[in-house]
Amino acid sequence: MTSVPRRGDGTRRKVLVLGGDGFCGWPTSLYLSRLGYDVMIVDDFSRRQIDRALGTDSLTPIRPIAERLAAWEGIGGGRIGFVEMRVGEDYPRLRDLLLAVQPQAIVHFAEQRSAPYSMRSAQEKRYTVGGNVAATHDLLCALAETGLDAYLVHLGSVGVYGYSSTGFPRPEGYLRVGAQTPRGIFETEILYPADPESIYHLTKALDQLLLQYYAKNDRLRVTDLHQGIVWGTQTDETAADERLINRFDYDGDYGTVINRFLMQAALGYPLTVHGSGGQTRGFIHIRDTVRCIALALSEPPASGERVRILNQVTETHRVIDLARLISRISGTPFRHVDNPRLEPEENELDVSNAGLIGMGLSPTRLEDALLTEVSDIARRYAHRCDRSKIPSRSLWHPGLAGGAAAVPGALPTFRQVEAEELEPAMPQEAWHDPQIAAPEAARL
Amino acid sequence: MTSVPRRGDGTRRKVLVLGGDGFCGWPTSLYLSRLGYDVMIVDDFSRRQIDRALGTDSLTPIRPIAERLAAWEGIGGGRIGFVEMRVGEDYPRLRDLLLAVQPQAIVHFAEQRSAPYSMRSAQEKRYTVGGNVAATHDLLCALAETGLDAYLVHLGSVGVYGYSSTGFPRPEGYLRVGAQTPRGIFETEILYPADPESIYHLTKALDQLLLQYYAKNDRLRVTDLHQGIVWGTQTDETAADERLINRFDYDGDYGTVINRFLMQAALGYPLTVHGSGGQTRGFIHIRDTVRCIALALSEPPASGERVRILNQVTETHRVIDLARLISRISGTPFRHVDNPRLEPEENELDVSNAGLIGMGLSPTRLEDALLTEVSDIARRYAHRCDRSKIPSRSLWHPGLAGGAAAVPGALPTFRQVEAEELEPAMPQEAWHDPQIAAPEAARL
Repeated sequence: MTSVPRRGDGTRRKVLVLGGDGFCGWPTSLYLSRLGYDVMIVDDFSRRQIDRALGTDSLTPIRPIAERLAAWEGIGGGRIGFVEMRVGEDYPRLRDLLLAVQPQAIVHFAEQRSAPYSMRSAQEKRYTVGGNVAATHDLLCALAETGLDAYLVHLGSVGVYGYSSTGFPRPEGYLRVGAQTPRGIFETEILYPADPESIYHLTKALDQLLLQYYAKNDRLRVTDLHQGIVWGTQTDETAADERLINRFDYDGDYGTVINRFLMQAALGYPLTVHGSGGQTRGFIHIRDTVRCIALALSEPPASGERVRILNQVTETHRVIDLARLISRISGTPFRHVDNPRLEPEENELDVSNAGLIGMGLSPTRLEDALLTEVSDIARRYAHRCDRSKIPSRSLWHPGLAGGAAAVPGALPTFRQVEAEELEPAMPQEAWHDPQIAAPEAARL
Repeated sequence: MTSVPRRGDGTRRKVLVLGGDGFCGWPTSLYLSRLGYDVMIVDDFSRRQIDRALGTDSLTPIRPIAERLAAWEGIGGGRIGFVEMRVGEDYPRLRDLLLAVQPQAIVHFAEQRSAPYSMRSAQEKRYTVGGNVAATHDLLCALAETGLDAYLVHLGSVGVYGYSSTGFPRPEGYLRVGAQTPRGIFETEILYPADPESIYHLTKALDQLLLQYYAKNDRLRVTDLHQGIVWGTQTDETAADERLINRFDYDGDYGTVINRFLMQAALGYPLTVHGSGGQTRGFIHIRDTVRCIALALSEPPASGERVRILNQVTETHRVIDLARLISRISGTPFRHVDNPRLEPEENELDVSNAGLIGMGLSPTRLEDALLTEVSDIARRYAHRCDRSKIPSRSLWHPGLAGGAAAVPGALPTFRQVEAEELEPAMPQEAWHDPQIAAPEAARL
């Protein structure tokens, strides 16, 4: 519990959660509702629609929004409003909604959020760039036009910084630099130079410039949360009733590396590590995500201030170490496969998160909560898994497909691995209590 | 004349000019055609359409594209192809065009290019962001998807650097900086931090990130030309026949500061200087623009290289000095009016242009060519001017309008000035030979 979300006159603070039916948006909406905010969700069900188009589904059974909302009210969670709308499409409708609701704050999750999905083909690249830019810009434009003094919390990505090794922690959004000039060193503080490695991350870098511009020109109050890879499924609120359960994506596009490993382990397939596994990434548990949003909401920057940027990351790990950890817990071996992404084979990554820690965040660590994911989610719902959806089929670059003689042999190797994945490394019944069954051999 | 635009097999190099019916695109198309390139124009006539919507028109009489192209062929200029298409809308059609034409190079002007227009209202903000991002991204996406090895020359803007005073020249796109870290200074070269002051300039900053990403991920060959304010109307090619004449925009949205002053002078109105006139901007003559494009085309970066960025600016001037110069030439006084833009009242600006100068550009200076603009364009076509269109009505921020008690009195003052502008400061017949009539008093 952070701050009391009441206004001076005793009424509850109204917050719009754009994208509130999604993986981060839904638990955030419930958490803010529990904190006492008057929450209204805006969503276009695009995440559910993409699942239908890809033939995928959340491992956990997601209920229709009306049933979710009724369940929340039914267990005494309070009433949450809902509007079906695609932000970034019908601008007058968005503007009119803002004028009608007069929210004090807006949390903006309404963007396509998968890097592999954004790399599938030209269609998904265009969908991601067009949709994400339009959503963020329409929102900013409507706030500027209406003059509504609503505080905007935007979900960015730690991926805007890029993953090249620098030898120092990624600062929170801004970097103090000096440039050599004929008159001596010119010192200034700049947005950390963007170096995105996927179209999805590129859109978060574009968003940064949009936010920077409107904060400066229209004095909008904005916080940008550069989030790491979110893992975990449940929060206290989503766990309160199965009808409130949160998404667990394990498919090659939307499943994060941890979920993919958990799913492979639950099915007794070897965990597939892209490349050497030396890629280091930042992570955060979904419980911490919702707390961070509440913390960010409780401390808006002043009008006229630059965008406040916080790194929403609690720990960093190398992919190979995640594989080893989950292998140890589950007793499932892992293997290396060709990397479909264009990224450094190895990188070190250290991310400063002093901002949110200073505001009171007490992180959920991977080693504390991973067993719960194994037992309560991956194992429990394993019968709902479509194994064919686990491998990632998005290639970062045509060269990586080995097509047209670019990298001879690359694609066959990759395909071969996918085929092999369909053969279980061990029978599914071999899934057992990790405390007992983690063989030393699996540690490699 | 720069390089011989022939390929190894003796055929002419094919170049697509996107936005080739516009102010920069048209003379570029003719110049490249004259150099021997096989030119195809792609345009959606959006610039002509905006004129109709705003009730404005070029001072010079622009002929329909078919007549323009026939005239060029008629005077022996050669055949230029034309396709009517809005880049950024029908992606498959763009991709198929690229595959059918197989150009060796593409010059990309197909963006909304007026800062004041981009600030008119939410509608124009959305049109500019949506349209410019979609045009650039669709093009990049199509080049990546088709694998076509076409070299892309994109028109950026020197405005991406922002106009804050730094005490050193704006470098060409990249800045070498050092950051203090626990392990010592970390040195790196970064994209010069973007600090756009209008939605239009913001889109050029967004473009930069799009170009950077595709150059890196898909190894596209890209040059980004950060152009200053283009002045002047004619090139040798457009001046060869009146049916080939280039645009001269003098309206408050598309007219640049020089054209607005020239028009006011031609009509005998006092030149209106926004604010103190201490704003320093970078300029380039349209003749030099087309030469720069040809120079850029002749030296593509290699595949895998970062985006090559060149500053397409030949001189910088303070607005007040331009007013004094044109006042002196024309004998028209100038006056200060409230600044509708949110920008520093005064700034120094020095822009490095070593790249294009090193490639052989020999600049056309303001003092050499301004008289031609006065006599051949502003004076000659003054009878076509709609005086009511000269003042800029776009306000950078609602506060500048004095609306809703933000800046009381600001809007009335601004309106008052506009009304006064409709009263000529001197009778129109007072327009005379500037060599004789420039009164000392007008120099201020």
